[in-house]
Amino acid sequence: MTTKATLYVCTTCRAGQEALEDEKRPGEILYERLTAAEAPEGVEIKGVKCLSACSSGSAVALAQPGKWTYVYGRLNADEHAADILEGAAAYAATEDGIIPWRERSTTFKKHTLSRIPAFGADDE
Amino acid sequence: MTTKATLYVCTTCRAGQEALEDEKRPGEILYERLTAAEAPEGVEIKGVKCLSACSSGSAVALAQPGKWTYVYGRLNADEHAADILEGAAAYAATEDGIIPWRERSTTFKKHTLSRIPAFGADDE
Repeated sequence: MTTKATLYVCTTCRAGQEALEDEKRPGEILYERLTAAEAPEGVEIKGVKCLSACSSGSAVALAQPGKWTYVYGRLNADEHAADILEGAAAYAATEDGIIPWRERSTTFKKHTLSRIPAFGADDE
Repeated sequence: MTTKATLYVCTTCRAGQEALEDEKRPGEILYERLTAAEAPEGVEIKGVKCLSACSSGSAVALAQPGKWTYVYGRLNADEHAADILEGAAAYAATEDGIIPWRERSTTFKKHTLSRIPAFGADDE
């Protein structure tokens, strides 16, 4: 598989906060933190305007053709950026998108909002 | 596009209830209700064992190659089955997976857990 995994980051998320005009939104701060260094191997990071997870933001999603898609929420830059990047690299290294439970960070264990099967895959 | 849209239904969801041994789970009841009649045009319905939306179940997801994926939660058979089927047909009829807001049922407006861009699509 040559296509990279994509880490989608909701850049407009307010994460439940009343955003002031001159303040960056939590989603934007998270996106900046995640893209501050080079992306992990096999991972491309894309900002998106809305992942429609507003009540559970900030949110990110991991997707790659042929793999389960995962959505994570209730994230913030300070606590979770490192785990998200590490988890994205682990996801990219899997065959099916499922990171073995014991290898998952607490962030990925506790912040999953949903997952969706790979299109056309057999049901688990 | 010849591939049908897939409506994934989490069949194991307890929707926050303590499931008794001899009772059907809410996810299974929802799946049975959704598959009781012929699937809507352009839609295939698949049961899956877990969409990892356990705290927001019952949950379903709509996916089709080239379209946004949508995940809906806090659903139950009695209140939402008809809207889910109607919404799945509307989704199948879209080009990009985005049902115009005015055409969306209250269920689809109020129960979105997240959405994920089509793989490789330009950011919105």
